[in-house]
Amino acid sequence: MTQVERPAVIGRLVVCGVGLIGGSFALALRRAGLVGEVIGIGRSEASLQRAQALGVIDGYTMAWAEALKGADFVLLAMPVGQADAVAARMAPHLEAHTLVTDAGSTKRDMIEAFYAHLGDHLDRVVPAHPIAGAERSGADAAFAELFDDRKVVLTPLAENTPAAIERVAAVWAACGAQIRRMSPQEHDRVFAAVSHLPHLLAFGLVHDLAGRANSEELFSYAASGFRDFTRIAGSHPEMWRDICLANRHALLAELDQYLGELAYLRALLIGNDGPALEALFAEAREARNRWADKAFPS
Amino acid sequence: MTQVERPAVIGRLVVCGVGLIGGSFALALRRAGLVGEVIGIGRSEASLQRAQALGVIDGYTMAWAEALKGADFVLLAMPVGQADAVAARMAPHLEAHTLVTDAGSTKRDMIEAFYAHLGDHLDRVVPAHPIAGAERSGADAAFAELFDDRKVVLTPLAENTPAAIERVAAVWAACGAQIRRMSPQEHDRVFAAVSHLPHLLAFGLVHDLAGRANSEELFSYAASGFRDFTRIAGSHPEMWRDICLANRHALLAELDQYLGELAYLRALLIGNDGPALEALFAEAREARNRWADKAFPS
Repeated sequence: MTQVERPAVIGRLVVCGVGLIGGSFALALRRAGLVGEVIGIGRSEASLQRAQALGVIDGYTMAWAEALKGADFVLLAMPVGQADAVAARMAPHLEAHTLVTDAGSTKRDMIEAFYAHLGDHLDRVVPAHPIAGAERSGADAAFAELFDDRKVVLTPLAENTPAAIERVAAVWAACGAQIRRMSPQEHDRVFAAVSHLPHLLAFGLVHDLAGRANSEELFSYAASGFRDFTRIAGSHPEMWRDICLANRHALLAELDQYLGELAYLRALLIGNDGPALEALFAEAREARNRWADKAFPS
Repeated sequence: MTQVERPAVIGRLVVCGVGLIGGSFALALRRAGLVGEVIGIGRSEASLQRAQALGVIDGYTMAWAEALKGADFVLLAMPVGQADAVAARMAPHLEAHTLVTDAGSTKRDMIEAFYAHLGDHLDRVVPAHPIAGAERSGADAAFAELFDDRKVVLTPLAENTPAAIERVAAVWAACGAQIRRMSPQEHDRVFAAVSHLPHLLAFGLVHDLAGRANSEELFSYAASGFRDFTRIAGSHPEMWRDICLANRHALLAELDQYLGELAYLRALLIGNDGPALEALFAEAREARNRWADKAFPS
């Protein structure tokens, strides 16, 4: 993909959902000197006031008609469960020149909402997924460096113009990100495996232990391995509800494959099969460390 | 438990298995000025040579007869699968005054080995489990601060004298640790839940993904959440083989309970049950963050 070296300044940026992702996007574009005015929109006026007080946005509105007037670029960064309602409300007010991207962790459902409501604008609606996050959420957690050297996966629509794709890619790149491209289907399968399933597993383990009569004792002996394993169980419940449901077919396929892996491990334990268990652990360690050394060089 | 403020110096310390745990124990007691001579013993002469070159031990031997001559204190820090063989080899040479403790992550099997071979010495063999570790292993990974503010669980035997328990507790406390006491059965159930199961789950997930035709692509999109979730899959395969097998009854019980949790999550996904999914995630997040804020105050 050709990337514009320095994209044109976005006169008016609209961010829907000024949380960790939306807020960080605004701050990253400010850092790059690539944005004039940032307008927030969302469900909670208190959150938008807070974002404005923090200087993450310049102003806000609760009305799409007002938000989209003269808007050059829209980032949709609300929980993906709101995609359909948001697209429906945007549709009557979206101007001909406005570019739209999103930050949804699942893509097919987001795209369904675009097809359902933004049919006249699909040339300029370029879906994206920034592979970045943190445990904390909300505008207070936003920071300009969130996307630095992180991947952003674009899943362009057949209707997108090359110019729109390039412009959206350039804006994400200006946030510090590395741009990748995939089909929405491939995207959702890949992230079911490496992101959505691990979140489900971590939430499940903590929920299981927290419901025990001796949960206090159990947690008191949990150590740093448990802390790291369960870090993603500190993620935002509504966001993850939406992701899991939006991508539940791919997620169920991954979960079932993993249940097969656990059935195998269970058989090895019952069979007291040391060599097979050690070989499996060694393969996992080798693969994990090879990946981590490359992905997170120290 | 009464703790001696400053324990007497250990003239001759024997460490069996001079890896991360054994080596750090020696370094911690050196730091405390509580050890004269440290003698290593183990399966691999090359590892012992390396530990000596690093200054972790003063010398080593491959023979228990030599190691135990005049030994005041023995730490057993080899993988727990070797417990029976090691106890058998120690038995003929253990002197009347020598105290023994261990660092095994499972306790019942270690204790079985003590009962099988060290019947004449049980008054001075005090089992222990330091809740400390790191991904890296070997003497090169050892450091004196490993046990600082970490829990060490003693699972004393009925045969232990109060003086032996106090002395062993004081030595671990001198390594920087906080001392706790449990029965071996309770210990093994608690750690199956908060440590052994998470390790099994992490090894299993990485093994599952690493065996896919598209594993390279999958890993290329794994991010920091995946890194943290799978950190414990970088643990030592032989050590974890031994732990999983030694504690497989408690571990299978935990795995089966967790499979029940996953069956519930699977039903929520199939039923598209957003409220129940969000409630479960919220409960997990609340429990996880409450624990982490207390256990790891920033």
